[in-house]
Amino acid sequence: MLGRGVVDDPGPLVHVDDLGLTRGDGCFDATRLVVGDDGSTRVDHLDAHLERFQRSAAALDLECDLSAWRELIAKAVAAWVVPGEAVLRVMLTRGRESAPSRPVTGLLTITPLDAHTIRARRGIRVATLDRGHAADAFTDAPWLLGGVKTLSYAINVAAGREAARRGVDDTLFVSSDRYVLEAPRAAFIWRRGERLATTRLEGTGILASISQAAIFRGAAADGVAVTDDLLPVDDIPHLDGAWLASSGRGVAPVLAVDEFVLPVDERWTADLRRWSTA
Amino acid sequence: MLGRGVVDDPGPLVHVDDLGLTRGDGCFDATRLVVGDDGSTRVDHLDAHLERFQRSAAALDLECDLSAWRELIAKAVAAWVVPGEAVLRVMLTRGRESAPSRPVTGLLTITPLDAHTIRARRGIRVATLDRGHAADAFTDAPWLLGGVKTLSYAINVAAGREAARRGVDDTLFVSSDRYVLEAPRAAFIWRRGERLATTRLEGTGILASISQAAIFRGAAADGVAVTDDLLPVDDIPHLDGAWLASSGRGVAPVLAVDEFVLPVDERWTADLRRWSTA
Repeated sequence: MLGRGVVDDPGPLVHVDDLGLTRGDGCFDATRLVVGDDGSTRVDHLDAHLERFQRSAAALDLECDLSAWRELIAKAVAAWVVPGEAVLRVMLTRGRESAPSRPVTGLLTITPLDAHTIRARRGIRVATLDRGHAADAFTDAPWLLGGVKTLSYAINVAAGREAARRGVDDTLFVSSDRYVLEAPRAAFIWRRGERLATTRLEGTGILASISQAAIFRGAAADGVAVTDDLLPVDDIPHLDGAWLASSGRGVAPVLAVDEFVLPVDERWTADLRRWSTA
Repeated sequence: MLGRGVVDDPGPLVHVDDLGLTRGDGCFDATRLVVGDDGSTRVDHLDAHLERFQRSAAALDLECDLSAWRELIAKAVAAWVVPGEAVLRVMLTRGRESAPSRPVTGLLTITPLDAHTIRARRGIRVATLDRGHAADAFTDAPWLLGGVKTLSYAINVAAGREAARRGVDDTLFVSSDRYVLEAPRAAFIWRRGERLATTRLEGTGILASISQAAIFRGAAADGVAVTDDLLPVDDIPHLDGAWLASSGRGVAPVLAVDEFVLPVDERWTADLRRWSTA
């Protein structure tokens, strides 16, 4: 692992029997890298992302040497000079099926943020999709890998295709017993009055969002009440506002969920953005 | 796709931004290749596996040119000379994220069957695991990719680790409303009296098993009643026998499910084996 350092246009690096490819058996994490016009670099919430990466690895019984990762990240960030926003992504797989000692495979990529993602910050329309399980389905079921950011993302990608079919920008997973869960690649934050809330982690299987946690930390420090909760889908029309929060796209105000148009408040959105990177 | 043909010890073939790796966004299929001592080769149910592969690809909106695959398979099988059993596996991914025209990635591997898999044919003990969704969760929810053999297999692999933790050989997924579904990599077939049954496909999200279908075709031709059904978990102790059926491992008699020891009838197992490859 981590045997090559920074490589430019490396050609194929992964073997055809790598279990990350053949079984989606591995984990990843991703955050935003911002390069200023003066060449200065900032990685958003790197510690929190690496801690989550390590938790994902532990849930998969994979070794994850954070000090080695930090070293590789420092080298990669130093080598990246493109001004603007990029996504820094770390991946860890169970290694090659044919390798007897089975060392894990570790990979890092940096990719410029695309215009489509940045445009979504103006506001998005989302459609609810049934995720197929009840809101408490992940209680005492570690084999379902709830909250683990695995490489097995095919359903999340399929949800994106379903969004396109429905003519919306993104989707919002809801439980079979009709509670809001999360978006395929973002946390859902809602506002009622002066209170912010997000889906609770316990039992729901959703990912612990680094962006949402930062927002709630900042909001609480500014005296805004924040809470983890379960939101019934039927309550969506009565919200005073909602956002999807993720590391790359940042804070995207939700303009509508299914046929329900939501209020948009630019002051709140600006606050959430400020808290998200504080 | 299919641009290289048969390669011996090829080194890395897959790019680090291949969506099959980074998102588990692709599909696969696998069947058994048997090479006789005289060099003769047999691929079990190749047509059925390729048809399922194409259905998986279609569910993911991926192109799948079966005539090109058949050509590659013929070349690969002709190049494989190791006598005994092997697994022939085809994989299709959405290609490289950075490639503008985004051609799909197609890969084929042949791997000898390991002794652990072959040993399982003597009989296995399994533990039930809650799959987290109701038995009808996949009705009208194509984004959940029910019945699609995707590369996003992390939960199936995690179930294997859970089996090891529990000291059993394999697991049996059951629905949250307590019906038997399937094993992570095999179909479940049960016997009551002179009747065989398996989990119905509709709504359950399970994979259409080629082995199970072959067994039921052969059984029906021999006058045995076969049916698709939903088996309540509470009925397991009253079964007259059960098997897991899959392409590589073949027919494995189930010795016990959780604490319930099941009857084993070698005559039935021999019949299922005969039907499975007929």
